[in-house]
Amino acid sequence: MLERYGHGGDLHTAEETFGRAADSFLDFSSNMNPLGPPPSVKKTLAEYAELIDRYPDPAVRGLRKKLAHHHGIDEQSIMIGNGAAELIDLVVRSLNPRVTALAIPCFDEYGDAVRKIGGSIYEIALSADNRFMLDPEAVGSAIEASAASLYMLGSPNNPTGQLVDPRLIMALLGSGAYVVVDEAFMDFVPDEERYSLVREAAMNDRLFVIRSMTKFYSIPGIRLGYIIGVPKSLSGLRRLQVPWSVNSLAQMIGEAVLEEREFARLTHSWLAEERPWLVRQLNRLGFEVNDGVTNYLLLRIPRELRISASMLQLAMGKEGVLIRDASRFPGLDHTYIRVAVKRRTQNEALVETFKRCLFEVTE
Amino acid sequence: MLERYGHGGDLHTAEETFGRAADSFLDFSSNMNPLGPPPSVKKTLAEYAELIDRYPDPAVRGLRKKLAHHHGIDEQSIMIGNGAAELIDLVVRSLNPRVTALAIPCFDEYGDAVRKIGGSIYEIALSADNRFMLDPEAVGSAIEASAASLYMLGSPNNPTGQLVDPRLIMALLGSGAYVVVDEAFMDFVPDEERYSLVREAAMNDRLFVIRSMTKFYSIPGIRLGYIIGVPKSLSGLRRLQVPWSVNSLAQMIGEAVLEEREFARLTHSWLAEERPWLVRQLNRLGFEVNDGVTNYLLLRIPRELRISASMLQLAMGKEGVLIRDASRFPGLDHTYIRVAVKRRTQNEALVETFKRCLFEVTE
Repeated sequence: MLERYGHGGDLHTAEETFGRAADSFLDFSSNMNPLGPPPSVKKTLAEYAELIDRYPDPAVRGLRKKLAHHHGIDEQSIMIGNGAAELIDLVVRSLNPRVTALAIPCFDEYGDAVRKIGGSIYEIALSADNRFMLDPEAVGSAIEASAASLYMLGSPNNPTGQLVDPRLIMALLGSGAYVVVDEAFMDFVPDEERYSLVREAAMNDRLFVIRSMTKFYSIPGIRLGYIIGVPKSLSGLRRLQVPWSVNSLAQMIGEAVLEEREFARLTHSWLAEERPWLVRQLNRLGFEVNDGVTNYLLLRIPRELRISASMLQLAMGKEGVLIRDASRFPGLDHTYIRVAVKRRTQNEALVETFKRCLFEVTE
Repeated sequence: MLERYGHGGDLHTAEETFGRAADSFLDFSSNMNPLGPPPSVKKTLAEYAELIDRYPDPAVRGLRKKLAHHHGIDEQSIMIGNGAAELIDLVVRSLNPRVTALAIPCFDEYGDAVRKIGGSIYEIALSADNRFMLDPEAVGSAIEASAASLYMLGSPNNPTGQLVDPRLIMALLGSGAYVVVDEAFMDFVPDEERYSLVREAAMNDRLFVIRSMTKFYSIPGIRLGYIIGVPKSLSGLRRLQVPWSVNSLAQMIGEAVLEEREFARLTHSWLAEERPWLVRQLNRLGFEVNDGVTNYLLLRIPRELRISASMLQLAMGKEGVLIRDASRFPGLDHTYIRVAVKRRTQNEALVETFKRCLFEVTE
């Protein structure tokens, strides 16, 4: 089990488990943009040696200004965090809801943050038959039955890859509850304006949108996320945030990568070509692919093979390929795995390794 | 007032206030080692471009191992934080004391962390007549009168520069309370073994020691601190920490700088020469210097000049020299400022600027 600390991308645990160097793995267990990091990151690192001896700007003024311009909202409606994980924790602590509704399967951190404050969780079960999409019926019965004062939803959702219809969010807000939408993977959606609720969050005092900069720009090492809300709502989070939570390199890199228009364009065209290609290959191998809009895919192992996710993860890991055992996500069983979409040669290696391992394990 | 966000070293606010570029200031308002960062930091930054696209090790295994070796304790007794500020917040939230005793003046973050959890503060007033040193009488009456279940003390203390006698900490532990000792500046003390409680904290389940790596190695931009306690006590903090709180560059740099023996030696010999020199110059200008063991000095402006700390800060800032207005520290009035000890030419510039400003302001 490589998810010892609850998440994919843990190359250190992989190293301990399989006895090979961390950098020798082909990592499909975390969802980074394989085209990144963009060129400005290296340039920024070179400049940073002269700046590491200064405290970070506690108010993150430069980056907030650039993000405000990027999204067409006011900089007072943006707060920066030490990765999206910190903002999930802060928003839940600040709102302190008695009951929080989650659409499962979803990112572990939502539930972990709720459990930390001793809150209850109401689970909206997404159905495989409906490709794990949130639908109006489920929203209607949640509003009726849950007594939730907070809804936390991923859009696109992790690990399912599905967007949430903005009208459903509006319905949830209509119930008087708070809604936090995690748009960590929204940058990968070419027509994000149709789905993102960033501008709405800047105006509605019960809506928050969390964004991550680490996936799209492939910089998870340095931690960078932000949250959008009305200034008064954000002040509650700011009171709880520790000073200088956002390191100065993250602030500088955040400012630099926002200028990378060509990188964003290349990413969208890579994903538009590569995801369908990989879906076809995986279908041919017998996987049930829950196709979505993101740079990762939720897969169901062919039932007749009787291979569990953990067995397959172990077999693949021995071959140097890391996949995510998705059975840890509440609502999924031991037949589910998640893989990132990477560059063509890497994806080919994934498919070839699957072929060998599915064959071996079932022998 | 440059301490808009509660602390010194805020070059962005200085830039806004004085209308000159952040890098044009000589900054005596924050307490970084002027010899740093050490050479390995630049080297690590150059290597980091290839590693930023991986998640940080969530358990910070490499750095904990090196720190354990450095201090001669078990790595299970060490937890790494996103700067000491995060660890102050986590330890207070984890212990959740009704009453916390602080020896004032002290670092703002202790009181801020207590107020965040709605706790009460019992103030042990340190006396200028006693050079702001904690003494057995004050400890005795605090144990008797405070009903505190937590004591938070800096050793060396900020802004006073004084060490706490380890026997006083033992007396406080004898009362049955928890004790957190903030040793953020202990690396600057050449015979730290006589004063540090790191090894005791690894064995006593009511004692925690917090250390910072950002001051001694001059890397505040990247955020790095750690806390020592028994593994069972640390697990309470770990439950509250958000995943990947410590970015991977901080982890790498932490590992690299621990090897910098020559840098540590140079730092101790620089400080042994430069602090007494600066103290003499400042005494000549009429300042009452609260001499201590650290790389910063608490100063009282000559009373007959009738200049407030904020007036002097403004006059110095216009000349491009930043000093800390220490009147914000509870227990100090508007006659106190704090300055860092820097390299000789920088210290000379500080003294010259003081001469001009004390003269101008009083004209």
